[in-house]
Amino acid sequence: MDKNKEILFSFVNEGRWKEAALLLAEMNEVDAALLLEELNHEDVLTVLRLLDKDQAAEIFSKLPDEMMAALIQEVTGSEIRIILDRLAFDDAADMLSEVPANIVRRILQNVGKEDRDVLNKFLSYGEDSAGSVMTCEYIALKQWMRVSDAIAHIRRNGRDSETIYTCYVTDDVNHLIGVVSVKSLLLNDNEEPIGNLMEDDVIFVETSTDREEASRILSKYDLLALPVTDSEKRMVGIITVDDVLDVIDEEATEDFEKMAAMAPSGRPYLKSSIFSLARNRFVWLLVLMVSGMITGGILSRFENAFSVLPILVTFIPMLTDTGGNAGSQSSTMVIRGIALGQIGMRDVIKVLRKEFGVAMIVGSGLALVNFLRIMMFGDGGLLVALTVAISLYATVIMAKTIGGVLPIIAKACHLDPAIMASPLITTMVDAFSLIIYFSLATRILGI
Amino acid sequence: MDKNKEILFSFVNEGRWKEAALLLAEMNEVDAALLLEELNHEDVLTVLRLLDKDQAAEIFSKLPDEMMAALIQEVTGSEIRIILDRLAFDDAADMLSEVPANIVRRILQNVGKEDRDVLNKFLSYGEDSAGSVMTCEYIALKQWMRVSDAIAHIRRNGRDSETIYTCYVTDDVNHLIGVVSVKSLLLNDNEEPIGNLMEDDVIFVETSTDREEASRILSKYDLLALPVTDSEKRMVGIITVDDVLDVIDEEATEDFEKMAAMAPSGRPYLKSSIFSLARNRFVWLLVLMVSGMITGGILSRFENAFSVLPILVTFIPMLTDTGGNAGSQSSTMVIRGIALGQIGMRDVIKVLRKEFGVAMIVGSGLALVNFLRIMMFGDGGLLVALTVAISLYATVIMAKTIGGVLPIIAKACHLDPAIMASPLITTMVDAFSLIIYFSLATRILGI
Repeated sequence: MDKNKEILFSFVNEGRWKEAALLLAEMNEVDAALLLEELNHEDVLTVLRLLDKDQAAEIFSKLPDEMMAALIQEVTGSEIRIILDRLAFDDAADMLSEVPANIVRRILQNVGKEDRDVLNKFLSYGEDSAGSVMTCEYIALKQWMRVSDAIAHIRRNGRDSETIYTCYVTDDVNHLIGVVSVKSLLLNDNEEPIGNLMEDDVIFVETSTDREEASRILSKYDLLALPVTDSEKRMVGIITVDDVLDVIDEEATEDFEKMAAMAPSGRPYLKSSIFSLARNRFVWLLVLMVSGMITGGILSRFENAFSVLPILVTFIPMLTDTGGNAGSQSSTMVIRGIALGQIGMRDVIKVLRKEFGVAMIVGSGLALVNFLRIMMFGDGGLLVALTVAISLYATVIMAKTIGGVLPIIAKACHLDPAIMASPLITTMVDAFSLIIYFSLATRILGI
Repeated sequence: MDKNKEILFSFVNEGRWKEAALLLAEMNEVDAALLLEELNHEDVLTVLRLLDKDQAAEIFSKLPDEMMAALIQEVTGSEIRIILDRLAFDDAADMLSEVPANIVRRILQNVGKEDRDVLNKFLSYGEDSAGSVMTCEYIALKQWMRVSDAIAHIRRNGRDSETIYTCYVTDDVNHLIGVVSVKSLLLNDNEEPIGNLMEDDVIFVETSTDREEASRILSKYDLLALPVTDSEKRMVGIITVDDVLDVIDEEATEDFEKMAAMAPSGRPYLKSSIFSLARNRFVWLLVLMVSGMITGGILSRFENAFSVLPILVTFIPMLTDTGGNAGSQSSTMVIRGIALGQIGMRDVIKVLRKEFGVAMIVGSGLALVNFLRIMMFGDGGLLVALTVAISLYATVIMAKTIGGVLPIIAKACHLDPAIMASPLITTMVDAFSLIIYFSLATRILGI
């Protein structure tokens, strides 16, 4: 791969375009696209124009959406037609969503009316909907066909289909009534009617279904493709498993980002500019900094306590860190469980009971270690040790309860559970743990 | 689903076993398995025994590994044979890995020598290796076959294959030399030889390859199945896309768990006992608590400073929280990028440059806000405001540098980058930020 990269770059630098094209033609199109990403747009166009049209379209379709969008603005009308003809509709729509609206219109003028209508429909689906990730190129069969008819139909229409391995059976008005796999076509007799072979208990989603939910369903039932219908169960497209792999990665990445207090970027790290990274991170840092100031305000109410007994301050990092960690353990488990569809509103009591149990075990262990440490290497004596140990125990229980329950509450309020992750939980737990700590200190130590 | 659950439970409670079996037979096997999970083992066995053998095996294979393992210890030798006959080898091996070793031996005595050899081989692959998730039931073709021969071969052998859609071409000594899809078989002429249709630039992994890497490769090239070979490129099995979906979810969950300072459990939250949850969480909490104590120790060196000027203490939570958050933003992005194969050792300079740039922008914004706030609602005056603002700026830069680079260093040292996540970064950043803060304070404020 790295060797190919060097060779390609030297061909391009020396203007040996044909040799560059030949090199790309021999590579897997995914790898070829990865190399082209690093060239400038003009060079990419020059090379692609020298390739066979099908190969060029294949490689083009694997480029990042932004690059496709930039390139299509620089090509001729007839080239636009060739590109849009060969791209799957979902890929074409993804690309067009990156192009300024006035240029989209110009591009759409270069395709036939039928394609334009389909593309317009795709462009209208919500960003995170099943409609936005589906493709409309699938094999539709009829109940009355025999296996041999179906195979003949696939031979005629299969070339343009995203997958031929799962075929959908529709009635005269395009209602989805069954599904049959090519495996069962091949393993059954040529004369068998499709109506007898098809599974009529079809698992499907609607265009408006969230794409993450659609992905979960495909994954749960081990499907290669999931049919997408309109609200009246008329077949409009399919979501294929390779798109689901991307959705699952993207959704997990989004959750990682949100859980670390960042606005999701939708772009790989190394391809994001410093400014966009800074923008995605600044707002949350600011919000959390302000919460930190509030915690500081709480702390200032106890200035008296820690000017009498400054040693109390030295336990603050241990106490707030442990509280934050205990809380984020719980919230992470629950947020991930919600994302995987394993935890729902109905489980709030179960979660509460589990977290409470865990907190009692973990909290008493940690409190004991702390108590013994302070007593043995003693900076403070029995009462300080007691104060710290009890505060720690209470903090862990409070943190785990908040961490376990808040994500579920967020979900119930139609908020994204992932924002209830470590940073927010930490901030809340910090404030509460300090209140617990100093209230106990003033009481137990009589200051 | 919930209605079916009630009906099933009432059938089981009233001993109406045949009706219970009939109900399950009508459901999708994934849903049926989900319902059976909630029954006790004896009831599950009773119901499964009333089902048609194929259906029982299908549902059985969708049960959780532990439940399969428990059930197989309670069935007769001939039932063991039936189950192992119908399970895919990889599923059978997964199940057997949950059964105590002495019982595995008894179970393996009940299958034929050939199957036993295959199962033993599967049981020997490392836990996270490609070998452990592959299946050996695939379609192998020969170069000299024609399309019609290949289709006939699939018709004869396809029933037991995990997938028939991607076929592998092997030579006389089983070396992998090509790959051909059923789509291209169906779309080409019956007389065409496979040698002409096959793609000979095959993407494959070895049995010892990490399963996560194998998943990334399958996903990158949009494959339905990925061939697995031994170290001499002899074909031993395939990994199918449905297994990859599970691997990707499991690996992301593991990363979430590690990044929130927990030992990965490999089990859904609601199915984990309180004790196992507590065990997975305690060790890391303890380690981090001890680090928190060290931070406390650092703080105690500055007791003098904050007994002179107690207001300094009130900025500690804001400073350490912001540092922790800034660091965990960076480490999360980099850890995720490494997991997705987007960031490697070679990118350490790029990451460093990006994080430094982001930190300068974000840090100066946050420092400015803080400076203005302290000046305006002033508790402390110019010098305190300056101390806090400069400390914050330095903390953010330090946190983002550490957060961006440590995961890459961990990866280079063959450690798991995910452990360099928020909790550990936070602890380190806490300590450093306090040192920065109080060193500056003693200097600027002259205390």
